[in-house]
Amino acid sequence: MMQNTRKIGKSSWVFKENIRIQASAAVAGPMEGNGKLSHSYDLIYDNLYAGQDTWEQAERKMLEDAVETAIKKADLTSEEIDVYLAGDLLNQNISASFSAKAEKIPFIGMYGACSSSMLTLSVAATLVEGGFARYALAGVSSHNCTAERQYRYPTEYGGQKPNTAQWTATGAGAAIIGIGGTGPRIQYATIGIVTDLGIKNPFDMGSAMAPAAAKTMQTHFEDTGRKPKDYDLIVTGDLASIGAPILKELLSNEGYKLGEQYQDCGLMIYSQDQEVFAGGSGCASSAIVTYGHILQQMMLKKYKKVLVVATGALLSPISYQQGEPIPCIAHAVAIEMDET
Amino acid sequence: MMQNTRKIGKSSWVFKENIRIQASAAVAGPMEGNGKLSHSYDLIYDNLYAGQDTWEQAERKMLEDAVETAIKKADLTSEEIDVYLAGDLLNQNISASFSAKAEKIPFIGMYGACSSSMLTLSVAATLVEGGFARYALAGVSSHNCTAERQYRYPTEYGGQKPNTAQWTATGAGAAIIGIGGTGPRIQYATIGIVTDLGIKNPFDMGSAMAPAAAKTMQTHFEDTGRKPKDYDLIVTGDLASIGAPILKELLSNEGYKLGEQYQDCGLMIYSQDQEVFAGGSGCASSAIVTYGHILQQMMLKKYKKVLVVATGALLSPISYQQGEPIPCIAHAVAIEMDET
Repeated sequence: MMQNTRKIGKSSWVFKENIRIQASAAVAGPMEGNGKLSHSYDLIYDNLYAGQDTWEQAERKMLEDAVETAIKKADLTSEEIDVYLAGDLLNQNISASFSAKAEKIPFIGMYGACSSSMLTLSVAATLVEGGFARYALAGVSSHNCTAERQYRYPTEYGGQKPNTAQWTATGAGAAIIGIGGTGPRIQYATIGIVTDLGIKNPFDMGSAMAPAAAKTMQTHFEDTGRKPKDYDLIVTGDLASIGAPILKELLSNEGYKLGEQYQDCGLMIYSQDQEVFAGGSGCASSAIVTYGHILQQMMLKKYKKVLVVATGALLSPISYQQGEPIPCIAHAVAIEMDET
Repeated sequence: MMQNTRKIGKSSWVFKENIRIQASAAVAGPMEGNGKLSHSYDLIYDNLYAGQDTWEQAERKMLEDAVETAIKKADLTSEEIDVYLAGDLLNQNISASFSAKAEKIPFIGMYGACSSSMLTLSVAATLVEGGFARYALAGVSSHNCTAERQYRYPTEYGGQKPNTAQWTATGAGAAIIGIGGTGPRIQYATIGIVTDLGIKNPFDMGSAMAPAAAKTMQTHFEDTGRKPKDYDLIVTGDLASIGAPILKELLSNEGYKLGEQYQDCGLMIYSQDQEVFAGGSGCASSAIVTYGHILQQMMLKKYKKVLVVATGALLSPISYQQGEPIPCIAHAVAIEMDET
């Protein structure tokens, strides 16, 4: 009887079959490519169009590039990938769906807003662990211009923003999950519940998402028996400078101290002199940092145990216009290198 | 070594752990409630607002009702459900996300347009089979008025349509997956690949989606060694009167004859005198027919082996406006009653 053997605690999964990231890739837009982690990207476009006719096509191209680069780095072909799980921020998930058309891999579309990076990675890991796929591919993307015009104002309008606003990162990330090898191992995943503290300001996503991150992290620590100090790096996806201190305070109130090992991907991407308001956001925020910088540092054994907590704000322009609060979610994945 | 033991053929999964639908529920809007399957719904709203202030809230309410009814029928509480997988047609999946907020169950957002019904059901089944959940809940919704104003024109505008257009069904469906019991068993799932034959007319989704349905069904038959005659009912989600004959012809060209046992959910919902152009569509089309009528008939042993092929058109208004063709997908689930 296999029932329920991989669920632990309230909402965490434990992986027992030596599930590892076989390869990953990060593709960055021009601003990201001029940021602090520029050395870590597989590909940097110096133009927001990425050689395409529209920004939407550019975003899709970046996702296709990330996927194809990851497949190549894993020394596989797309025929060897059993399933492709992907999500993005655009209406009807078009970057993900259109990239799936190019790859011709059985496709599972997912939506978790900016939390889609760890959502797709978590479910990809379950499909490999459960024997439903030998290799599963997880991918996400976001693009500053496609997100601006969809969620906010026509891009040319140049609407002003408060400093609590965030800058949607342009880029894409992908990872291939399989059994065995020497890459970073997926040990746990914690699936979030939707939280909502009544925050309605779409120009302050950090404040809205911080409670979701705190909830998922607290659940993760309770479910696994781990403490923050068990990780040498804990990152959130895109809480940025407003949300990150709120998260620290919320967790501190619950008895969990986040120290120096805590960082936020939205604060890691850009240089001080790049104007990004409170910091980066978007599916690409957690994806290009995790699938580029963090996994590279893990392979170098600089980090051995990392907890990536991808945060997502699940609003739509119409839910916001109808006066609804912003429901948020966070999904966490514990990624580890072998001790030896 | 568990690796890859549940994947068969190109893109199908086989379930070995006695995975069954513990309970399901179907909630219908007013037109659907006056249609041919009115006896089979758990709840019928006689008003498109369902007691809410907006159509979007009405859609969400129907999804919440479906979920809560299914949980109640399974004699469970929401605390006993380990994970909730849901999708809908609205931008940023707001019906699914907001319903997850109400239920407080760890949430996996999915997007497959109208194919989301079988996509969520398939992945829910893998999570139970793989030991990641004791009970997994799958749910989808659609609403004629929320879809009209998002995909087409302001609803009040009353834009005319050609007869190839389809009518987005209003309603929601949910199913609870678990191990054991006496309910319908999930035997196989076939995950689709994205197909695109260059069709660009968003008022003829049936023609666009038929090749995706044909592709997934052909793959299903090849992967499982089954033939159409092995099923006493095969339904597609929403090909309607234009797409269904195209599917039959495409499969016939490949040597698979669909006979009398083939039906389309979009043609089963409404009466002859209801004006729905080519037939029903939307996530609710396959969901209310499957989670209401079909599963009830299976419990009565009227049908023993059923293949539900949910079809989805993965376009967005912006992809269409930018001149892109309509990528489509279909996911199939084989549901069976025990022979005895």
